[in-house]
Amino acid sequence: MTEYFDAVEVIATKRDRNELSDEQIDWVIDAYTRGVVADEQMSSLAMAILLNGMNRREIARWTNAMIASGERMDFSSLSWPTADKHSTGGVGDKITLPLAPLVAACGVAVPQLSGRGLGHTGGTLDKLEAIPGWRAALSNADMLRQLEEIGAVICAAGSGLAPADKKLYALRDVTGTVEAIPLIASSIMSKKIAEGTGALVLDVKVGSGAFMKSLEDARELADTMVALGTDAGVKTVALLTDMSTPLGLTAGNALEVAESVDVLAGGGPADVVELTLALAREMLEAAGKKGVDPADALADGRAMDVWRKMISAQGGDPDATLPVAKESHVVKAPATGTLTRLDAMGVGVAAWRLGAGRSRPGEAVQAGAGVVMHAKPGDIVAEGEPLLTLHTDTPERFERALAALDSAFDIGSSDEPVERAVVLDRVTG
Amino acid sequence: MTEYFDAVEVIATKRDRNELSDEQIDWVIDAYTRGVVADEQMSSLAMAILLNGMNRREIARWTNAMIASGERMDFSSLSWPTADKHSTGGVGDKITLPLAPLVAACGVAVPQLSGRGLGHTGGTLDKLEAIPGWRAALSNADMLRQLEEIGAVICAAGSGLAPADKKLYALRDVTGTVEAIPLIASSIMSKKIAEGTGALVLDVKVGSGAFMKSLEDARELADTMVALGTDAGVKTVALLTDMSTPLGLTAGNALEVAESVDVLAGGGPADVVELTLALAREMLEAAGKKGVDPADALADGRAMDVWRKMISAQGGDPDATLPVAKESHVVKAPATGTLTRLDAMGVGVAAWRLGAGRSRPGEAVQAGAGVVMHAKPGDIVAEGEPLLTLHTDTPERFERALAALDSAFDIGSSDEPVERAVVLDRVTG
Repeated sequence: MTEYFDAVEVIATKRDRNELSDEQIDWVIDAYTRGVVADEQMSSLAMAILLNGMNRREIARWTNAMIASGERMDFSSLSWPTADKHSTGGVGDKITLPLAPLVAACGVAVPQLSGRGLGHTGGTLDKLEAIPGWRAALSNADMLRQLEEIGAVICAAGSGLAPADKKLYALRDVTGTVEAIPLIASSIMSKKIAEGTGALVLDVKVGSGAFMKSLEDARELADTMVALGTDAGVKTVALLTDMSTPLGLTAGNALEVAESVDVLAGGGPADVVELTLALAREMLEAAGKKGVDPADALADGRAMDVWRKMISAQGGDPDATLPVAKESHVVKAPATGTLTRLDAMGVGVAAWRLGAGRSRPGEAVQAGAGVVMHAKPGDIVAEGEPLLTLHTDTPERFERALAALDSAFDIGSSDEPVERAVVLDRVTG
Repeated sequence: MTEYFDAVEVIATKRDRNELSDEQIDWVIDAYTRGVVADEQMSSLAMAILLNGMNRREIARWTNAMIASGERMDFSSLSWPTADKHSTGGVGDKITLPLAPLVAACGVAVPQLSGRGLGHTGGTLDKLEAIPGWRAALSNADMLRQLEEIGAVICAAGSGLAPADKKLYALRDVTGTVEAIPLIASSIMSKKIAEGTGALVLDVKVGSGAFMKSLEDARELADTMVALGTDAGVKTVALLTDMSTPLGLTAGNALEVAESVDVLAGGGPADVVELTLALAREMLEAAGKKGVDPADALADGRAMDVWRKMISAQGGDPDATLPVAKESHVVKAPATGTLTRLDAMGVGVAAWRLGAGRSRPGEAVQAGAGVVMHAKPGDIVAEGEPLLTLHTDTPERFERALAALDSAFDIGSSDEPVERAVVLDRVTG
């Protein structure tokens, strides 16, 4: 039994810029999970942590206490090595869809517990649910069986993993305390460590459409998470990747599934292919798989084979026609020149407003809604030609979606060079 | 109707070190009072205010919003000028008891809405309730009638004044957010301004037994409160007074009533008399009463006459024998010399543990419990002679009370000088 600490004393410790002891952290997380520490106490502690910070020891202990609040999964019975990926969330970020079957096709199993979208970023489960018949919920036994047989599973996280994190995340969302790097890092890593993966690759997004707007903040988050994973015995690597503009040419659920299938078929937008391969290489290396080039598995259709099996195993029909939105609206280029900027946040908010995203947990999303981009930064566009196509089942949504795109792009002179890199940096333990 | 602001946006404004707008402050206080803003949102905002501060405009608006959450009293129908006093709380601070009748005896009515004690500081109502028959609850009409007839009333504050403050104070108490000068100042001043007094004198305590441990913090609190009162049209003055050692020779309910009666009879400890007269002079001056020396009203018994009427009017018997605790225990001086230190916090905690105070709202207190001091800092003490006498109805409490006094006093060489001043500074608008 942990020693008793009064909640006010724990709050006052961090408020007064002192370090929380191991006993204080263990007690406050456990007591919060049991309802002994009240929401109003945890939220003032979260604000004190946001403003006064935590050191590496405190963050590690906080993460471990959240892991200890629930069950842990164990993939050691599998005949495969395992690797997992986590993205901090972006616009058009469908990478999980081609990545999981690709890595499995190369001999490393991917147990991908995913979530739903909120606000301007889409959720992997929402995207896959655009496929007729596909279901997100799997029992642990079904998940293990699918992993052993196919090597890839993308499903909803059960409620047993890190319940303290679930409760704390919902609280932070309504109390202005989401933006604390120690709490973001421990939230992500507590779930990922509890999932029991052997290796973990983090895709930390940077830019207007990402949670982290600056490279400096993204690097701090990446450093913190890599340290947490390493300390917990999980081989962890992070890539810092660009989210100033959307990934690929689509933002929206069915639209992104179609684009992912293009990638698995050996085509697709260059940036999606590049990031999928970069993350696949990191996952294979972290899982100890040497001498395998994932580009081959894309080119020869092995990744597509795994995709079809993975979708079928969860009730989906990989050959089904994907839903298409009832209405569309074209935004034309207002001038001729180089598209110098296409803002990720603007496109993300537009897709959300068209019905692809939700404003609060539990809301339904439209499978066909979203934005198709006809050019990416660096491309030449011609006045009057289509620049974006907006899709929705509910045309009254066009007006607010268009407002989000009002100042979301710039067109410069035709010879203006545009610098574009997908992977900005790499962080290791 | 005020413009709608999302609670998270208000929290984020202060979290990110920006100023809250008037509209944000009005909305968040009103919405919190109505239950639209949840406790866990207000507590994270309170922590952000504690750590990032508020400027004078924000504090004034916050105070006004709390006043606007409830009713305001109005003493303009009285034939007397009015003045009120507020102490930030100390050990042995019975000053309100002799002060209210003294100022009334000099021609200024004192509507003193008081509270109960919590922790190591006693409450004025708890002290007066040691008098057999005395009752704290009065209707507004009874209060006005007593003020007009006698000139002094000490009673419980009704629930209609600044309900937002009542709710917020209870929240701050359990969320580690009491220690925020903007929130302390607005809490005190919202109630005092809503009470409708014409003049206000603040007794801001400094030292080990006080909420403010340093002169610097006390001065900041005093400056903030004087500015709030002045801005609201209330003539406001603050005295910074010493609370490193208890006031007078008693800490405990009936014990302090007896000492207050001694002062009203023209005797009593020098420091209690000095502070009572200093505050009386400030109240008279602030209320515009010139050429009256309160020392005369103590010396000739007029203050005692008002006291007797005031106690009788609220059901109390001014001639009743006060309750005496069943058990006592004497602490003897361990050496001969000058008492160089007698710590206010140590004595306050001892009195609390003996039963004079409470640990949570609603707990009963013992009328007779407390500490009698036989010497004050600067006095010569002789080894083996009584230094303190502890009183309680429940002798099992002695051990923990004695523990609180363990390092609460020092005895030095007999010629060691001890500096003592009751009033440390004066703050005006």
